[in-house]
Amino acid sequence: MDGAVTMSPATLAAIYDADGPRSKRAEILHAAIEEFGRVGYESAKWASVAERVGIGQPALYYYFESKAHCLLVIMRLQLERSHARFVAATSGATTAGDALGAAVTQVYDVSEHEALQIRVLQSHIVLLANRRGSPREEEERLAARALVRRIEDSWTALLERGMDEGSLPRRDARVLALAVLGLVVGMWRWYRPATGRSREALGALAAEACLRMVDGGRA
Amino acid sequence: MDGAVTMSPATLAAIYDADGPRSKRAEILHAAIEEFGRVGYESAKWASVAERVGIGQPALYYYFESKAHCLLVIMRLQLERSHARFVAATSGATTAGDALGAAVTQVYDVSEHEALQIRVLQSHIVLLANRRGSPREEEERLAARALVRRIEDSWTALLERGMDEGSLPRRDARVLALAVLGLVVGMWRWYRPATGRSREALGALAAEACLRMVDGGRA
Repeated sequence: MDGAVTMSPATLAAIYDADGPRSKRAEILHAAIEEFGRVGYESAKWASVAERVGIGQPALYYYFESKAHCLLVIMRLQLERSHARFVAATSGATTAGDALGAAVTQVYDVSEHEALQIRVLQSHIVLLANRRGSPREEEERLAARALVRRIEDSWTALLERGMDEGSLPRRDARVLALAVLGLVVGMWRWYRPATGRSREALGALAAEACLRMVDGGRA
Repeated sequence: MDGAVTMSPATLAAIYDADGPRSKRAEILHAAIEEFGRVGYESAKWASVAERVGIGQPALYYYFESKAHCLLVIMRLQLERSHARFVAATSGATTAGDALGAAVTQVYDVSEHEALQIRVLQSHIVLLANRRGSPREEEERLAARALVRRIEDSWTALLERGMDEGSLPRRDARVLALAVLGLVVGMWRWYRPATGRSREALGALAAEACLRMVDGGRA
């Protein structure tokens, strides 16, 4: 289920393969997400990523200077994608309530692979807190932090729009946005397939819960 | 503000100093929380923890076999405390709605040091996903996982109670509990003092948001 929010192949290529058609970068990122997501980043071996792609470790270092650098790139790309998805999902909505519902639902309407990438991002978000020693890692970290901020701002602006329109009761939009994001992100972390709910059902429940939280059903 | 939910010195001693009055364990844990919380676990030096306590590294190893072992103990203890706090906060409440409000509010009503410990826990929760190589680390990991499960069960049971009483509308209590926990935990992660809100204000807003989410104001 690759969902309602799709990006053009050109956009995806631009995001995932900035180095041209012969680049191994996209393949390495794909393999690293699988490796980090399934084995866990701590236990994951950089050599296993090379093996999955069928290249040697020196080739790996052509693209990423370290396992941490690769992780930070994966995180930054997922944040970019999350923001692009938010914009795509909300741009067609007429009311702030509809936009919020669409924004929350799309978070869970992703491929297995993207679900894994979201988990990798969320599980290591703490890495964004502290300065990195290497300039390339630090560049990714700062870009990722700026994206987190942009995402917070976008969700806040959406709630403010609803409050200005009068479809949502006036409240502290920033804190409410952080509560919504907390729920949306937190559900990913607490959710396990063993609970017997599909991601689709989870998305619907999360959207309803968020709408109740902001009183979006009031209108 | 050490809050409405306090534990007896005996309970705290039992939790923090299982090795008797002359043990350095509590001091080391305190120092490690400060170090991991302020510098970041990745960058934190095990030697700096020893320095903060004023002991040598060999003495440190008497209590913890590794930095990771110490982190897992910190996480397990915070989960124990979170669960004890939940039980204390909810036991006096007459309705499920009141109990939920009290349970959410108390999460933010903690000392600066406990706030740091909560962040250390939440930032490294991914460590609980994968088996540890060392038996002592694995023991802590399994204990922490069991506590996560017990916390989920307690919050679910609280919502079920409200649904049985008729004070909350009937819904999937498990998923709703995960949404509530997602919000409560997620707020900690997204919150920064720079937002200009106190933790107290945050707790009140989170409690209101959760009550709206479960329709607790309906009754």
